[in-house]
Amino acid sequence: MIARIQPERRMSQAVIHGDTIYLAGQVGEPGEDVVAQTRTALAEVDALLAECGSDKSKILSAQVWLADIADFAAMNSVWDAWVDAANLPARATCEAKLATPDYRVEVVVVAAR
Amino acid sequence: MIARIQPERRMSQAVIHGDTIYLAGQVGEPGEDVVAQTRTALAEVDALLAECGSDKSKILSAQVWLADIADFAAMNSVWDAWVDAANLPARATCEAKLATPDYRVEVVVVAAR
Amino acid sequence: MIARIQPERRMSQAVIHGDTIYLAGQVGEPGEDVVAQTRTALAEVDALLAECGSDKSKILSAQVWLADIADFAAMNSVWDAWVDAANLPARATCEAKLATPDYRVEVVVVAAR
Repeated sequence: MIARIQPERRMSQAVIHGDTIYLAGQVGEPGEDVVAQTRTALAEVDALLAECGSDKSKILSAQVWLADIADFAAMNSVWDAWVDAANLPARATCEAKLATPDYRVEVVVVAAR
Repeated sequence: MIARIQPERRMSQAVIHGDTIYLAGQVGEPGEDVVAQTRTALAEVDALLAECGSDKSKILSAQVWLADIADFAAMNSVWDAWVDAANLPARATCEAKLATPDYRVEVVVVAAR
Repeated sequence: MIARIQPERRMSQAVIHGDTIYLAGQVGEPGEDVVAQTRTALAEVDALLAECGSDKSKILSAQVWLADIADFAAMNSVWDAWVDAANLPARATCEAKLATPDYRVEVVVVAAR
């Protein structure tokens, strides 16, 4: 069973395959600072997981891409307040420029249903 | 069940685990422009999925790594013409230098069988 | 079934979902050279997979992130000696700055149980 959530022009925002959910990279609002963008991106993760019948307690892994690794601590301050401390995902973080310079962070999530 | 497709010196080009297929990062011909390299990389994705008994309609997620994010629109022009509009995968794109400067794009795919 | 291995402040070092294992990005000791850091990171992969009831013969895919892609050959010298030649994973490698400049390599693994 494959279900595709919010299919747009060139990608779906989420794809469900059996018990596994793959989210598209989630970003914040271009031009906001990294704290605001991380909050928005993680809120998008919450919303998409809800639409897939899941939630952040079932996240399996996350990649966090920062346009500037100097934002590591600021991103983590938002992450630490948001993540389900009883159900921590595997995570990997690196620096990578994003689609435009206005994007500071992108989060790529795999979750269970 | 794990099956390994095109095992080479240090990696397999594809690994099948149950109903899920993991492809190695696919690239184009070094020295070609990003449009030609994207076409070649996506043709490699097609060929590997076929060898695994799948096709692009079953792609779950893709990461696209561009050596220069300025190539975003050019890469997308090839992606948009190639992707199955009725079965859009989740996707995330960033800038990342690749194995040598001659490589402009690399595509990392997870698909269903 | 989801099991979380070595949950720490902000992530688990491994998450098991059914027959699939997702590892957090594994790194070496800050300040060591890329050969030593790759050895340490891959030893961490071995240890985490063992704790999950698996081993490197069941790795499905790996992403290798190098702080400097010039370290590609040095990283591969360690990888080639370590990887199970009879059970090669899919792999993709790129350059990406890591959490601090002292980290030279990070390895992100998905494996089967």
